[in-house]
Amino acid sequence: MIKESINQSFTVAYRYQVHFTKALFSIANPVLARFFASHATDIMAKALVVVDDGVVEHHVNLLQEIRAYFESLQGIVLADELMVVNGGEQAKNDHTLVDRIIDAVDRHGIDRHSYVIGIGGGAVLDAVGYAAAISHRGIRHIRIPTTVLSQNDSGIGVKNGINYLGKKNFIGTFSPPFAVFNDFSFLQSLSDRAWRSGISEAVKVALIKDAVFFEWIAEHAGALTNRDADAMEYLVYRCAELHLQHIAGADPFEFGSSRPLDFGHWSAHKLEQLSGFEVMHGEAVAIGIALDSSYSYLMGYLTHADAQRIVQLLQALGLPVFHPLLDAEGTDHPLLIGLDEFREHLGGRLTIMLLQGIGKGMEVHTMDASRVLAAASMLQNDFEVQL
Amino acid sequence: MIKESINQSFTVAYRYQVHFTKALFSIANPVLARFFASHATDIMAKALVVVDDGVVEHHVNLLQEIRAYFESLQGIVLADELMVVNGGEQAKNDHTLVDRIIDAVDRHGIDRHSYVIGIGGGAVLDAVGYAAAISHRGIRHIRIPTTVLSQNDSGIGVKNGINYLGKKNFIGTFSPPFAVFNDFSFLQSLSDRAWRSGISEAVKVALIKDAVFFEWIAEHAGALTNRDADAMEYLVYRCAELHLQHIAGADPFEFGSSRPLDFGHWSAHKLEQLSGFEVMHGEAVAIGIALDSSYSYLMGYLTHADAQRIVQLLQALGLPVFHPLLDAEGTDHPLLIGLDEFREHLGGRLTIMLLQGIGKGMEVHTMDASRVLAAASMLQNDFEVQL
Repeated sequence: MIKESINQSFTVAYRYQVHFTKALFSIANPVLARFFASHATDIMAKALVVVDDGVVEHHVNLLQEIRAYFESLQGIVLADELMVVNGGEQAKNDHTLVDRIIDAVDRHGIDRHSYVIGIGGGAVLDAVGYAAAISHRGIRHIRIPTTVLSQNDSGIGVKNGINYLGKKNFIGTFSPPFAVFNDFSFLQSLSDRAWRSGISEAVKVALIKDAVFFEWIAEHAGALTNRDADAMEYLVYRCAELHLQHIAGADPFEFGSSRPLDFGHWSAHKLEQLSGFEVMHGEAVAIGIALDSSYSYLMGYLTHADAQRIVQLLQALGLPVFHPLLDAEGTDHPLLIGLDEFREHLGGRLTIMLLQGIGKGMEVHTMDASRVLAAASMLQNDFEVQL
Repeated sequence: MIKESINQSFTVAYRYQVHFTKALFSIANPVLARFFASHATDIMAKALVVVDDGVVEHHVNLLQEIRAYFESLQGIVLADELMVVNGGEQAKNDHTLVDRIIDAVDRHGIDRHSYVIGIGGGAVLDAVGYAAAISHRGIRHIRIPTTVLSQNDSGIGVKNGINYLGKKNFIGTFSPPFAVFNDFSFLQSLSDRAWRSGISEAVKVALIKDAVFFEWIAEHAGALTNRDADAMEYLVYRCAELHLQHIAGADPFEFGSSRPLDFGHWSAHKLEQLSGFEVMHGEAVAIGIALDSSYSYLMGYLTHADAQRIVQLLQALGLPVFHPLLDAEGTDHPLLIGLDEFREHLGGRLTIMLLQGIGKGMEVHTMDASRVLAAASMLQNDFEVQL
C-alpha cells in the first residue's frame, strides 16, 4: 500500500518580453501603457518604483515624468513614494537596500499581482530584483535597465543577487523578470567609460556564439567608440537576443556546471574585487576575455591571428586588456588565487569556457597555471612575448 | 533590424523523490546511502545539517547516529558542525536563524553541488529551506520532516518562508527540495497533540480531492487517535501523494490566484496569529475546515449531513472545531478582519476554496459576512443553531 518513494516531477513555464524603445516615460510613448493594459484585471494594481540616483542625476525630470505617465494610466496606481537609491556596487554590498524595499512592499501593500519596478544600472537591478523575488515569494518585477551592460546582459536575464562579506552574488535567486523595457534614451547620458565598458559583454557573446556578430562589432568599432546611437542600439539588441537565446536553450537556472556566458568572467570577478570595484565590470570582463583568448592560443586551441584580432578589437573599442594589479609573480599571483577561489565556488571542479575559434566556445575542466601567467604576460607586453 | 520586442520563453523541469522509511540514520538503513551514491561525482560533496532542538530532545542519540552514518558513506563529508536550532514558530519569526545558516554555508564552503539538510518540524524546515534557496542562488536542499504535519504537507512541497513583522511567510521563495526523506520513526515521539494536529491536513486534502480517502480516515479515526503506527503511516503516505499530485498538476509556483490546498486556511492563519501561535497550525486548520464546511452548507453548496459528518470526524480525531477567540460579534469580528486581510493579501480579489461535496472542492470569489458569522455560531453551539 505504501511505496518506498514517490517521484515528483513537473515543469514550470516562464515567459517575458524584452522591449526596445526610446523615451519610455514620454506620454506619447504607448509601450508601457499597452503593457499594463494587457495585464489589467478588475482589481487596481499597484506599482512600487525604485530608481538609481545616478539616473535621476542625469535625468532631472524623470521622477516627474514617471508620476505623470502613471497618472495617465487606468487600472494601475503608483505607490506615493518614488524610492531613489544609491547606485553602483554599494547598492548590493549589504542587505540595507533590500530591507528598505521589503519595508516599502509591506507599507504600500504591494501584493503578488502588483509590480516592483527597478530603474537603473545592473547593481541596483540586482538588489531590487532580489527584494521582489523574496517578498511574498515573488512579486512581479519589471526591469528598466539604463546602462549598456544591464540592457545587453544582466538586466534581461534571470538572475538577481547581493554580495555577502565581499563575496559577489553570494545571496540571490533565479527569478525571471515579469517584463524588461530597454530604453535606449538612457544610454545617451552615460559617461564614455560606462558606454564603452558594456560593449565587452557583446564581444563575449559574439566570441562564443556568433562570428558574424563579431565581424559586425569589428566593422563598427569606430562608430561605437564615437557614440553612434544606431550602432549601439543594434549592439545592445543583438547581444540581448543572443543572451536570451542562450538562457532559453539550456539550463536557465544553472543546475549543471556549464556557464558559457561566464566566458572571461572568472578572472574578471577577482580583478573587480581586488580593485575595490574601481575597475568597472565591463572593463574587467574585457581583460578577462583578452586573458582567456590568449590562454586559448597558448594551449593551441585558437590561432595566433584570431587571438590577436580579439585583443586588438578590445583595444580599438577603448577597453583595457591588462591591469597593473595583475603585474605579479609566483604562486600567490592574483590570477592563481582567483582560479582557486573559482574552483572552490564551483564545488571543487572547474568548468571554464575557452575559445577554439571566433564564434566557437569550448569548455575545459583544468587550467595550466604557468600558461595562465604567460597569457597575462603577453597582454602586459602588447601581445609580443610568448611562451 | 531591431524588433520592438523579443519574446523570451522557456520551461524549467523539476524532479525530486519523496522517500518513506524508518530509522533513516540506522547504519542498516541503505536509503540515504543509496541516494548519495546515486548523486556521487569525482568531487567530494559536503553536507551541512541543521536539526530542530525538539527532535534532539526526544532522540538523544540522533547527532551521534548522524555522524556515524555519514562516516560510513563515500563521496560526501559532513561539515564538522551539526547545527541544533530552536524549533517551532520562533525559528521563522525573524532573520536570525537564516543568517546563522548563511554564515555556516560560507564558513564551511557549502557550494551549489553540496547539501543543506534540515531535520525537524515545518517551521525549522521553512527557515532552513529559505536559507538554502537564497545561498549561492540555491543550494541542494534535503528535507527530513519529523512531524505529521511536515511529512504530509509543508515538508514535501515547494515553498519555504519566514515571517516578517508578524506576517506569516511574508519572505520566502518557491524552491523544490532536492529530495525528501519521511522517516516514520520520528512520529513516535510526538506529543498526542502534535500527532493529532497533523491529521487535519489529511482531512483537508481528502475533502477537496478524494472521497475514498475521507472514508478511510473516518473508518480509521479510532486507530489514528490511539496512535496506531500503520494507520498513521498510510495517512501520511496518501496525504503526501495527493499533495504531490496537486502540485505537479497545475501552477506549482502559484502564478495564478487559485490555491486549493489552502482550503480552511484563510481563517486558520488569523487564529494562529491571534493566539500568539498557542493554537497549533493543524488545530487552526481543523477549525478552518469546520468553518468553511459549515459555511458551504449555509450557502447551499453542501448538504447538512455532509457538513455534520465533517465536523464530527474532526471531533472524533480529537481536533477542535471552535476556539473562544472566535466568540465575538459585529464588524470587528476576528473572522471578518481576517477575511479582509486575506483579500488584501491576494491583491484585492478573494479566491476561496469551499466544498460542494465530500471530495469535491469549488472556488468562490466572495464570502457573505453574516453567513461566515452564522457558520462560526453553529460550531460554537455544537452544530445545532442555524441561520
